[in-house]
Amino acid sequence: MSELLRRDPVVISTGLRLLADAAQAQAARVTQVDWAPPMAGAEDDLVPILGDPRRHAANASAMARMLAVRAHLVDVVRAGTALNLRPGEFLHAGPPVSWERASGPLRGALMGAAVFEGLAGSPEAAAKRAERGEFALDPCHSRGAVGPMAGVISPSMWLFVLQDPATGRQTYCSLNEGLGKVLRYGAFSLDVLERLSWMSSVLGPLLAAAVRRRGPLDVTAILAQMVQMGDEAHNRNRTGTLMLLRDLLPSMIESGMAASDVARAAAFIGGNDHFFLNLSMPACKLALDAARDIPGSTVVVAMARNGTDFGIQVAGTGDQWFTAPALTPRGLFLGDYGPDDASPDIGDSAITETAGLGGFAMAAAPAIAALVGGTAADALGTTQRMYEISLAEHPLYRVPALEFRGTPAGIDVTLVARTGILPQINTGMAGKVAGTGQVGAGLVTPPPEVFVKALHALALAS
Amino acid sequence: MSELLRRDPVVISTGLRLLADAAQAQAARVTQVDWAPPMAGAEDDLVPILGDPRRHAANASAMARMLAVRAHLVDVVRAGTALNLRPGEFLHAGPPVSWERASGPLRGALMGAAVFEGLAGSPEAAAKRAERGEFALDPCHSRGAVGPMAGVISPSMWLFVLQDPATGRQTYCSLNEGLGKVLRYGAFSLDVLERLSWMSSVLGPLLAAAVRRRGPLDVTAILAQMVQMGDEAHNRNRTGTLMLLRDLLPSMIESGMAASDVARAAAFIGGNDHFFLNLSMPACKLALDAARDIPGSTVVVAMARNGTDFGIQVAGTGDQWFTAPALTPRGLFLGDYGPDDASPDIGDSAITETAGLGGFAMAAAPAIAALVGGTAADALGTTQRMYEISLAEHPLYRVPALEFRGTPAGIDVTLVARTGILPQINTGMAGKVAGTGQVGAGLVTPPPEVFVKALHALALAS
Repeated sequence: MSELLRRDPVVISTGLRLLADAAQAQAARVTQVDWAPPMAGAEDDLVPILGDPRRHAANASAMARMLAVRAHLVDVVRAGTALNLRPGEFLHAGPPVSWERASGPLRGALMGAAVFEGLAGSPEAAAKRAERGEFALDPCHSRGAVGPMAGVISPSMWLFVLQDPATGRQTYCSLNEGLGKVLRYGAFSLDVLERLSWMSSVLGPLLAAAVRRRGPLDVTAILAQMVQMGDEAHNRNRTGTLMLLRDLLPSMIESGMAASDVARAAAFIGGNDHFFLNLSMPACKLALDAARDIPGSTVVVAMARNGTDFGIQVAGTGDQWFTAPALTPRGLFLGDYGPDDASPDIGDSAITETAGLGGFAMAAAPAIAALVGGTAADALGTTQRMYEISLAEHPLYRVPALEFRGTPAGIDVTLVARTGILPQINTGMAGKVAGTGQVGAGLVTPPPEVFVKALHALALAS
Repeated sequence: MSELLRRDPVVISTGLRLLADAAQAQAARVTQVDWAPPMAGAEDDLVPILGDPRRHAANASAMARMLAVRAHLVDVVRAGTALNLRPGEFLHAGPPVSWERASGPLRGALMGAAVFEGLAGSPEAAAKRAERGEFALDPCHSRGAVGPMAGVISPSMWLFVLQDPATGRQTYCSLNEGLGKVLRYGAFSLDVLERLSWMSSVLGPLLAAAVRRRGPLDVTAILAQMVQMGDEAHNRNRTGTLMLLRDLLPSMIESGMAASDVARAAAFIGGNDHFFLNLSMPACKLALDAARDIPGSTVVVAMARNGTDFGIQVAGTGDQWFTAPALTPRGLFLGDYGPDDASPDIGDSAITETAGLGGFAMAAAPAIAALVGGTAADALGTTQRMYEISLAEHPLYRVPALEFRGTPAGIDVTLVARTGILPQINTGMAGKVAGTGQVGAGLVTPPPEVFVKALHALALAS
């Protein structure tokens, strides 16, 4: 002890920097340990879950099943037939929500879809019918589907059908309309409705004919290539769209449909770098659905938002949603729009982050970081931080800038609760007023409460 | 001095590590300075060139002209008409070479092209005619063209026409046949000739119709995107090919040609990740040609090989070639092929490195490094080393992994001579026996002598 007092003090500090800073100011050597207490409200529930003897094997099983899935595009079909969706029924992104609590962009998309379906003569008339409770709303996830942004699916829309060849399981997603004033961002102007009509009468049937003529298309293989070529498959789907076009084109051309229609469809797909998003999302859902319903597993199998609430589902707790008010993304805005114009976080597209893509694969797409004011080093740092809350490295999604290390995949609720690190989500931003459309793109996280609530349910089930 | 002797020695060592290693072995602190004497044979010539008062402004002008060029694809034409190439005349890659000194793959390609042109009934008969001096050979570069590998262009072949809109200058390149057994790798079997025939009768006319219908296509803009998406535009042209297909497709479909022909062409282009190489190369030549004929400039404006000789041309010395025997690439081999099967370095494709792409942009395409047994860090290191011998950073070709720093562009003969650092070239490898085709892909450099010879000519002109 006397020896200790004779030497210069060497301080090791954990947690808050207050002590470390004070000691450093007195010229002491300080090592700061990067540690934080578990998320507030999570301490008591962590104990039984971490002690649950099923957890290790359950999570290993969840990851093995999830990473084994291959997603093949096998068909393009009408939503009405495929999902048994009747007139007046609509699917939407995120956890369940009523018209009364629905966000502006979700209301806008529902109003536009009702007009598109011929259920109302104008968006305003559609809103009145919705207020009277004449429409039925269900989450896309409840029917095996996902939808970007508002995510509204109505019976006349065409859906991609993805299938895991090993199990025959299927997922669905609508066709992407492009950026700006589009239904999924809550816009419902005449050009939006005309585009939906063309997609319904020309693009859908053409894609259906092409996919049936060609046979299954390996979407997972394209996703693996995308991560080599600058896409993270959420906000950047440029390579994916090009590869899809390349792979479908010969059968589109030989479909027998008019050359002018095929040419317009090729230009439409080629002119929309986000077209592949609507294949990336159901491919991710197909992988994550394989990890559902495994008692004792703490793996997140869905993250989804409806512009009002952010919800997650977990492998060990069935179809239960854990929700909290959605945060509002920060990022860059189009034209004259600013932060006050943005709706809270919306869309099923966070399924990409849940599966190890999107924000989790940001190191593969440094151009995304540049778009929101960051650097390539920030993009690397984001992916590296996500390893802290993930159970595995994806064997197919390998990042060149990380020496081909697999992306972090499989968010563990207990790792999020213990580290306080929240999943990083890249996202588009919708205008909060119904009818506006896209106002920007940026970064967001889930509200921490959803993990606290999930943890509590897991503790009760442990 | 007495103070100096009392302290521990601190050694600074330059050049060979012999002294540094010995001092380090005795526990001395050593700082090794990375320095090497100028290239052997270059010392005397460097003095007048570095003292040439024109040099600084001449090189600045060369770089400004080169970096201002935009390459647009404006037409697809027959070589005979466009280059005034008559039956029995053939263009080839690299500096001038006679049939007697021609490499195996160049002979193979000439034999195949002669049969394709109907000038001989068999490759063997074609070789006999060549031996008798009945064919005229000229470098592609002498007619404003470039050709990958053997680079043989005959009158019936179709050429891409690239144009700089600011000056109207044009360059040309043949259409890419794919990999493996193809004419440009020296193969001449029946399937090679059948493919050439289909390209001549279907693909060429279709591309010509599409480009004319569509209007100019900005190849430089695609190159800029490629560097963001994993391509270095020499050995990897995957994104470029996809973008070309996307941009030409609508006009291909509406060309009025049979749907089955359009579908086959779309599948042919989409199935050959190297198709865009034959646009990348003439785009690079178009940029470099702008820097030609500037007295006093030490910028390299062409590097090209014919399988026998490696040649360079320099801005300050007109059309003079400086040649030395080509080295043989090292890399990975296809199937059962090995190092003994490889021809010495061949092709005009090193024009990409000369313009700041290919090996110089390797940091943008780490998958290339992995292909030849290296790592992403090696790819970064290669690009970083090339800055040492380059005069500029390309304003359009920006590498995400280097925080969007422009690629090194504009090789300076004096920097090569002073540092001894040789340009790094990514390349395909042809079989050395005529008729073989591709045997692998790898890395190579120019022989140092070409820079020594260029330096000597520059010194005489200074």
